[in-house]
Amino acid sequence: MRKLVRVVVDTMGGDYAPVEPVKGAVDALKRNNHILVYLVGQRKIIHQELSQYIYPKDRLEIVSADEVIETWEPPVNAIQRKKNSSLVVGLTMVHKGMADAFVSSGNTGALLVGGQAIVRKVKGVERAPLAPLIPTEKSVALLIDCGATVNARPSHLVQFAMMGSIYMETIMRVKNPRVALVNIGAEEEKGNELVKETFLLLKEKKNINFIGNIEARDIPKGVADVLVTEAFVGNVILKLYEGVGTVLINRVKSAMMVSLRSKLGALLLKPVMKQTLKIFDVSEYGGAPLLGLQGGVVKTHGSAKAVHFKNSILQCIQLKDQDLSGKIQEYFSEKA
Amino acid sequence: MRKLVRVVVDTMGGDYAPVEPVKGAVDALKRNNHILVYLVGQRKIIHQELSQYIYPKDRLEIVSADEVIETWEPPVNAIQRKKNSSLVVGLTMVHKGMADAFVSSGNTGALLVGGQAIVRKVKGVERAPLAPLIPTEKSVALLIDCGATVNARPSHLVQFAMMGSIYMETIMRVKNPRVALVNIGAEEEKGNELVKETFLLLKEKKNINFIGNIEARDIPKGVADVLVTEAFVGNVILKLYEGVGTVLINRVKSAMMVSLRSKLGALLLKPVMKQTLKIFDVSEYGGAPLLGLQGGVVKTHGSAKAVHFKNSILQCIQLKDQDLSGKIQEYFSEKA
Repeated sequence: MRKLVRVVVDTMGGDYAPVEPVKGAVDALKRNNHILVYLVGQRKIIHQELSQYIYPKDRLEIVSADEVIETWEPPVNAIQRKKNSSLVVGLTMVHKGMADAFVSSGNTGALLVGGQAIVRKVKGVERAPLAPLIPTEKSVALLIDCGATVNARPSHLVQFAMMGSIYMETIMRVKNPRVALVNIGAEEEKGNELVKETFLLLKEKKNINFIGNIEARDIPKGVADVLVTEAFVGNVILKLYEGVGTVLINRVKSAMMVSLRSKLGALLLKPVMKQTLKIFDVSEYGGAPLLGLQGGVVKTHGSAKAVHFKNSILQCIQLKDQDLSGKIQEYFSEKA
Repeated sequence: MRKLVRVVVDTMGGDYAPVEPVKGAVDALKRNNHILVYLVGQRKIIHQELSQYIYPKDRLEIVSADEVIETWEPPVNAIQRKKNSSLVVGLTMVHKGMADAFVSSGNTGALLVGGQAIVRKVKGVERAPLAPLIPTEKSVALLIDCGATVNARPSHLVQFAMMGSIYMETIMRVKNPRVALVNIGAEEEKGNELVKETFLLLKEKKNINFIGNIEARDIPKGVADVLVTEAFVGNVILKLYEGVGTVLINRVKSAMMVSLRSKLGALLLKPVMKQTLKIFDVSEYGGAPLLGLQGGVVKTHGSAKAVHFKNSILQCIQLKDQDLSGKIQEYFSEKA
């Protein structure tokens, strides 16, 4: 029998805890037979939530953690003080090999700090980047780093490029992924010191398919598979994607409702439009994995709903089955 | 009689020179009686282009400049060497008071360097930022800086906030403009050193209506009038706006064409959709002015068409009529 992939789900983090993470876990269990879910958090609350669902009881366990790390808490402090928080308990299970991955939509800073401090980095990895998939016209691209490493150095970005390549090749089955450096111009000499130095380093890397600089306007066109960038810029890209998409889609939807004529038009367009308007829904693709760690850690959106938790949990099957951590480890140990 | 606003238009810069800048100038002249246009560039070529149009000949003059600064040329070098380029000649006319403003879609770097070196900064202004208007759900917001000042310091960003406020108040008639700092979180302690320090300085400024940090996802919602950011990030925001908007609109348009049913729906929706799909068309609002200079300098998109040139030229009337440079000068001299 195939071994179950064990995913710990944080039921205390994010805007819709515990309702949405619990529902997402139940949905994931029903969707896929190869996972076992640990719901971590306050036992009584989780019990209450679960009571309304029918689910495979042999593949769900509750793990007690009474403390909660709030969104506004300073990360390092919170991790050190709240040893019995859902976040620390969950990450510790991954570290000890009791689980394969941890999914949370709680305090991002705490998850990043905790991921590196508790689950620990693969040897040779300098920083662990946060790397969500973002939709493009043609497919998806991995945006790396989108918020983990403040004050990144060129050597960090080069490692991100490498880890991103391994992710796209291993998990997304993209052959020889095209790696691009986010910059404010296409030419080699454009940009600040960080990107200029990184450009020179990436050009020399033989095992990276570096295609050069990419301007932000070309990101949605899908001309690259891995988008290498510093955390602040990556975070702005991720959130602006979401913001522009949402506003534009809302505008299209309300334009459809202004008159009887437009409503009729909307009715006729409904079948084709439904999929179209989903194209820039970032949450379709699960959460953002924290790469370069010795186990799986996935950050879901702070306002994640059940479907996002479900997708993030299912994503962990891939991380485990394809042994992403192992492959990154292999690469960095060969290098050493 | 009212004095004409004198605008120099660079006919040699950008992807569609000389066709589009010349056509844009003619359109602007027809649209507004209060402007005089100087077309700067190679006289013979401009003559040829103009021959196909009927236009008010008393308000258009050709100014000879035989050299062209190419897009790939290193800015400082190009400005110093090509004294007879359309860019240097045009900026010099503004410096000498022979014209009120210069509009170009040529080499951005050269325009930024030339603007500061030839037209010169207002006394007290440390750096001149590039500040385009970007559309939001409700109206527009000024994105400042979107590419002029590499390695900006907190004091630069504070000046950008001030100049942006003056612009929105003077040109866009926004009372007490809401100024926000682009950051990766809403809380005061979020972000890198630059934004943290800038936050503290902005909080102390009594003549700025500082509303705190803004996350990129909220930019399109229109919750702020002035978006203060460092050049690299600003440039990414501007271009991603364009990229996401374009791809999404193309998707909507092609979805409308997939079947007979959808085509019929599209036909019914046409009247309302036309305006809706224009919402994120950045070029609707003219070009990006370089603020804090002693005269008007406006950068239009490298792939600007006639309509963008026309809008950028008309924008110069506002810059002159409202005496933006004078108001910025006034503010910075009071401070001294």
